[in-house]
Amino acid sequence: MSRGILYGLGVGPGDPELLTVKAARILREADVVAVPDKGSGERTALNIVRDYVEGKTILPCITPMIRDQEALDAAHDRIADDLCALLAEGKTVAFITLGDPTVYATYLYVHRRVLERGYEAVLVPGVPSFCAAAARLNISLCEGSERLMIVPASHKDVTDCLHTDANLVFMKAGREIGALKETLRREGILENASLVANCGMEGEQVWPRFADTPEDTGYFSLVIVKRGEKT
Amino acid sequence: MSRGILYGLGVGPGDPELLTVKAARILREADVVAVPDKGSGERTALNIVRDYVEGKTILPCITPMIRDQEALDAAHDRIADDLCALLAEGKTVAFITLGDPTVYATYLYVHRRVLERGYEAVLVPGVPSFCAAAARLNISLCEGSERLMIVPASHKDVTDCLHTDANLVFMKAGREIGALKETLRREGILENASLVANCGMEGEQVWPRFADTPEDTGYFSLVIVKRGEKT
Repeated sequence: MSRGILYGLGVGPGDPELLTVKAARILREADVVAVPDKGSGERTALNIVRDYVEGKTILPCITPMIRDQEALDAAHDRIADDLCALLAEGKTVAFITLGDPTVYATYLYVHRRVLERGYEAVLVPGVPSFCAAAARLNISLCEGSERLMIVPASHKDVTDCLHTDANLVFMKAGREIGALKETLRREGILENASLVANCGMEGEQVWPRFADTPEDTGYFSLVIVKRGEKT
Repeated sequence: MSRGILYGLGVGPGDPELLTVKAARILREADVVAVPDKGSGERTALNIVRDYVEGKTILPCITPMIRDQEALDAAHDRIADDLCALLAEGKTVAFITLGDPTVYATYLYVHRRVLERGYEAVLVPGVPSFCAAAARLNISLCEGSERLMIVPASHKDVTDCLHTDANLVFMKAGREIGALKETLRREGILENASLVANCGMEGEQVWPRFADTPEDTGYFSLVIVKRGEKT
């Protein structure tokens, strides 16, 4: 029996229509759809693809939201075990991931493990959330000679980014959103910042002025800071 | 008669299957497909969507590859004139653009002009080339606390980027590719760099080691530099 293939599938930021034609085809052809589950039963990626996966076997993959590296490694090992067992049976497996699988995706840790064990695993790119957020705001991310820096906002101090010659995207701002607003205000660039929450999902909020937002806009909040014309 | 809508449509990096379901639908519904043309008759974006636009009116939009701001403004004004005339007639127009329309897209200059004239224009995000290139290399662009900086390589000196705490993507390296390689070698990070040329198009080249590439890999060359684990 020939081995199956694992696809790490970007399903885009939220709007089911932003799935690629390729992702839609692979989902239709897949035997099993693996779904990241942060333990709370919330499966945002599954909501996006629900029209393509009816009747398919769904494999929930528990990826806890913790920073204990040992526990994370164990969780990723377990997921790789489950996936490799399916691949050994010749199953085609589509592991769905929000946005693009190369941008802050838990899937990559699983991908590497599956490759290391000698199985075939393929990354299928998707539309990242920051492109969709810029589109909703009707603005560019970068033009001409401008640079663009993507920053995970909740990991460490972001002040040094503000002194970089680049437009900025702050992702996963979540609980840090109030602190981020205060930092941008202090640095005098709050007026250049916009926010989109839950882009393309239920409860979408588009704020051309970040300064106007309430304190809590939720986990899927993304802030874009433009630095003005520098061509 | 009601006015038409202009869609600034990202068609992804090259592989026709990386078109979104939304872009495919809008192309099917559009009356006119506007196509950027750099004056040499090369229409890369049109090749990507050819299965969706058969029999449709194609409007070539001449966007010369020059840096004379006055001449560029005049070219963008002329394109906006043509598009607004169609919108006034109630036509739906899809302006196709490689990758994503918010990332270094000429379309944005046209988009702003059309909005300023009071017409409706909507951005539809696409898969950017850097996501597709990372997928072909089987690597992530950013993980955990890593930052990611997108840099247009041909516009100004890039040395300061190399001292930034971020993974790097050099786009549009084109003729500067030899100089970029030399700079990365001098800074001791050439071994961390990979190159993909013509991602998903005819003549695709995937080089996990940028150090191994020949001098000329063409206009659509993209270099990714990873900085190692910094979590």
